[in-house]
Amino acid sequence: MADRAAASPARELGLFALPGFPLVGRGDDLAGLTAQGLDEAGLRLRPDDVLVFAQKVVSKAEGREVDLKSVTPGSRATELAGIVQKDPRLVELVLRESRRVVRASKDVLIVEHRLGFVMANAGIDQSNVRAEHSADYALLLPEDPDASAQRLRQRLASLTGCAPGVLINDSFGRPWRLGTVGVAIGCAGLPAVLDLRGQADLLGRPLRVTVVGHADEIASAASLLMGQAAEARPVVLVRGLTANAAAQPALALIRPSQEDLFR
Amino acid sequence: MADRAAASPARELGLFALPGFPLVGRGDDLAGLTAQGLDEAGLRLRPDDVLVFAQKVVSKAEGREVDLKSVTPGSRATELAGIVQKDPRLVELVLRESRRVVRASKDVLIVEHRLGFVMANAGIDQSNVRAEHSADYALLLPEDPDASAQRLRQRLASLTGCAPGVLINDSFGRPWRLGTVGVAIGCAGLPAVLDLRGQADLLGRPLRVTVVGHADEIASAASLLMGQAAEARPVVLVRGLTANAAAQPALALIRPSQEDLFR
Repeated sequence: MADRAAASPARELGLFALPGFPLVGRGDDLAGLTAQGLDEAGLRLRPDDVLVFAQKVVSKAEGREVDLKSVTPGSRATELAGIVQKDPRLVELVLRESRRVVRASKDVLIVEHRLGFVMANAGIDQSNVRAEHSADYALLLPEDPDASAQRLRQRLASLTGCAPGVLINDSFGRPWRLGTVGVAIGCAGLPAVLDLRGQADLLGRPLRVTVVGHADEIASAASLLMGQAAEARPVVLVRGLTANAAAQPALALIRPSQEDLFR
Repeated sequence: MADRAAASPARELGLFALPGFPLVGRGDDLAGLTAQGLDEAGLRLRPDDVLVFAQKVVSKAEGREVDLKSVTPGSRATELAGIVQKDPRLVELVLRESRRVVRASKDVLIVEHRLGFVMANAGIDQSNVRAEHSADYALLLPEDPDASAQRLRQRLASLTGCAPGVLINDSFGRPWRLGTVGVAIGCAGLPAVLDLRGQADLLGRPLRVTVVGHADEIASAASLLMGQAAEARPVVLVRGLTANAAAQPALALIRPSQEDLFR
């Protein structure tokens, strides 16, 4: 673990996946496990550090597993399940977690999640949920990922004496481009969006690109270390960020629908 | 739980912006400047390293500046310029660089670039182009960014004895989410997309998310260091990536239009 950032912090970024993270279950103290993992790795938190948590472990710690046997699909879910060719009980859960369906076709169900995220399957996950009955359990997004990030931040502060930035990331597909990338669904203690309006470029002219999806770029960077078999490495420390702006929740990353040409 | 060694390289990622990069102009040897910058920073290239170049410096080195005074807008550009409220000469260039217009409204012109990227203004940039006449010059994307990446890789190999992965990144806006994020428009010597189909999760079940936009995640990570006043830090070294898959061009990241529900 280098300490080369000292000379010019903005020139260098270090990402570290916490080793030895256990499988997480309902009620587990994620912040406590993280503080312990940092300690074992010899890492002492700094105020500019950002800790990125995989959505899956946050949802599990918050008990967001649902037994599909407990779900009775309504007529709308049953009809939609025929179109997208998914389990009607899963589709029922997707609808309960959503404001509306954006696109539905074979194998594809893109919705506007109740929090505003436009995403596949309302972020509901069926892999890595339980060892015994994989097909019978689904995992929902945290109830309020921004609040989850805030709680993790506060608990980390009380455990370590230092309040880092906290992100919760998930993998989203995208129109036009193949492959998922990490995006931020929860954010505390750092700016989700950087608004550079009014700033000048190197030659003194106003910048063309003025709003940057800062937390999404961090979420993607962390995703490179988490991989997709992600429960082994669900927490990544990002060190060296220097964005100087007010903290915002991840909901600030959602484009207002009246400005969106693709809803 | 799988064996997880404490010091596995996949647990740690380092990003380093090359210091002291000069302003780049037509014909400049980007690979040579990069080799020199690495040398000055005391960094010796390793085969798993990835070097990320900002599109802007690649375009400038390739002489992709256009004097807008040399551009005569056609009737279609003039009409469209009225809708989007942009310079008709710029709109003419956008149309020449594009296959078709995807969305056009006030301040927004999203096209399918001739290479397939769906992006604003065909990636044409008007800031940071020239000191003297900012409003009169535009900067196009490289003619073939994958070929540019390949050339940079080969030239770096001949200069340093080591062929790193090479990405060219740009900032793209997105539907549904605010703010731009770095994406890969050129790629050589590394996989643009990771296809995990057939791989199992920690509990032995097939992974739900099976295709990852690997090069886009790297491009976003590098963008965190480049910032938006990016010419001062146009080259970022990424160290610690361990993706083990065949190299592909960045065009592999473009979703085939028949699979795309948002064209």
